[in-house]
Amino acid sequence: MHILIIGAAGMLGRKCAAHLATTGMIGPSPVNSLTLVDSIPPVAPAGFSGSLAIHTLDISAPGAAARCIAMRPDIVMHLAAVVSGEAERDFDKGYRINLDGTRLLFEAIRAEHARTHYIPRVVFASSIAVFGAPFPPVIGDEFFTTPLTSYGTQKAIGELLLTDYSRHGIMDGIAIRLPTICIRPGAPNAAASGFFSNILREPLIGREAVLPVDDSVRHYHASPRAAIGFMIRAATMDLTPLGWRRTLNLPGLSATVGEQIAALRRIAGDRAVALIRREPDPAIARIVAGWPGDFEAGRARALGFAAETSFDEIIHAHIEDELGGILPAI
Amino acid sequence: MHILIIGAAGMLGRKCAAHLATTGMIGPSPVNSLTLVDSIPPVAPAGFSGSLAIHTLDISAPGAAARCIAMRPDIVMHLAAVVSGEAERDFDKGYRINLDGTRLLFEAIRAEHARTHYIPRVVFASSIAVFGAPFPPVIGDEFFTTPLTSYGTQKAIGELLLTDYSRHGIMDGIAIRLPTICIRPGAPNAAASGFFSNILREPLIGREAVLPVDDSVRHYHASPRAAIGFMIRAATMDLTPLGWRRTLNLPGLSATVGEQIAALRRIAGDRAVALIRREPDPAIARIVAGWPGDFEAGRARALGFAAETSFDEIIHAHIEDELGGILPAI
Repeated sequence: MHILIIGAAGMLGRKCAAHLATTGMIGPSPVNSLTLVDSIPPVAPAGFSGSLAIHTLDISAPGAAARCIAMRPDIVMHLAAVVSGEAERDFDKGYRINLDGTRLLFEAIRAEHARTHYIPRVVFASSIAVFGAPFPPVIGDEFFTTPLTSYGTQKAIGELLLTDYSRHGIMDGIAIRLPTICIRPGAPNAAASGFFSNILREPLIGREAVLPVDDSVRHYHASPRAAIGFMIRAATMDLTPLGWRRTLNLPGLSATVGEQIAALRRIAGDRAVALIRREPDPAIARIVAGWPGDFEAGRARALGFAAETSFDEIIHAHIEDELGGILPAI
Repeated sequence: MHILIIGAAGMLGRKCAAHLATTGMIGPSPVNSLTLVDSIPPVAPAGFSGSLAIHTLDISAPGAAARCIAMRPDIVMHLAAVVSGEAERDFDKGYRINLDGTRLLFEAIRAEHARTHYIPRVVFASSIAVFGAPFPPVIGDEFFTTPLTSYGTQKAIGELLLTDYSRHGIMDGIAIRLPTICIRPGAPNAAASGFFSNILREPLIGREAVLPVDDSVRHYHASPRAAIGFMIRAATMDLTPLGWRRTLNLPGLSATVGEQIAALRRIAGDRAVALIRREPDPAIARIVAGWPGDFEAGRARALGFAAETSFDEIIHAHIEDELGGILPAI
């Protein structure tokens, strides 16, 4: 299989490339060829014995999508996006990358399809940002998309395009609405959602983290490891059972901040928990109040998608994947 | 008020222009100026005493949207679209007119907004084609959009864009999902939905009509008169109660073909009904089976939108509006 990852320098892109390189397999099939594309230079994953190509390309630039698709990858993982905060501040950039970039990619596939009957599998990383408050306590699989950000709007449009192009036989697409990824590795970031990861990742290595909201705040999470599992499954499963409803709400763990902290206490003790500094931030609290707390995701579960069922599991996955399996003494 | 109608040569555009010209009012406000735009030449409505401008323009052509918006209309009625069948057959044309045309219009408004703080009311004619089977018996106001046509996809994208541009304060937009319009005036057309109108309109004037489906088929209708009422209300109401859920499922009449025919019999007698020729067409039956039968539309009803409650009313409205109030002897 030849796999193209667009957005390969992002957190999920890097982890996906690393997974494919290390295992050499995607589902039941060997990975012969891996093409990594991003607007910032992607890094070559270690241990890959197949053919590797790396391109630094802006997918929305003229000809860039056609260049990617000329290589006729069997699977296209489309993860490239301007993130929520930036797409909200920079209206033009958000629409250019998140909408035009996606459409140019699909149009490049359509052009190749018209020439050679090429029909790749396309996995589109969508987001629960397609939803906007007010919400029911548990969001069902048939709940409507009323995004409250330009990012969510652009993701919802990408889902619609992906389904229409699939229905016309141009590609075999699936859009997966990822939960908030927790624990995000790396340095704390300034995203409004950053604290969900910060309050676990930082105390685990003996560093302070700021908690800007109340313990009762509920949100919907999946680990990076679960997210890679979602992407691999979406890339390899038979999509016939989805009909023309090619977008899935994914399983995740619905948990309060208090439940996150209780899991941290069980795994790393009171001294770790003591590193969480409570600094209520009404602005962040207001943003987070508009985010969903729980999803039914029955359709995706029935199709074999699975996520963690406790924050203990999520923390253990982080320790294994990011800290070499060892919890530092703090 | 200056009102711009884009798609002014279409059935609803013509009727809307005629209504505004005749009454000289839109809601509580006088109509001082009317600008009619379409890719085929719009006809001047009779009896308008204000300032009238008519432009034959393709909204997706370079500079066309900017030309429309340079006139700074207070209200933009965006009704222009390639219809369902054509958008499905001609992929490029459908996306060019229905998606790019809409986006270019919104971008022209954004450019004018950036220059002069212009914020028009925008009424976008969407469609129940944003929904795709399978359906619950009655579609709720929070049901998801999984269109099964490119037309429905493009309308759903237009709704998302309209809401995002409104949320950014660029325009004050509302999208209204029109039921199937029945009785459509004019000659029978080849659209799969045409028979819903044909089997009433043609027998009322002593002509035969073909019924390609079973009497038990249920669909969701509103008269042209109700549709104009929807557009006027959407153009003039306070949109604050909608929040950022700027798309409404509209009220309509859910009725079976059998109920349509029973109403025709009550109003025009057995001889009219005898003009309906049953010619089952499995292809049309299959298409129609994928269409929705009923909507809750509670939100729009609470906001004062109203449609007919019986097919007798719909037929009487047609006789009044299209046949001069006189039922011909047949």
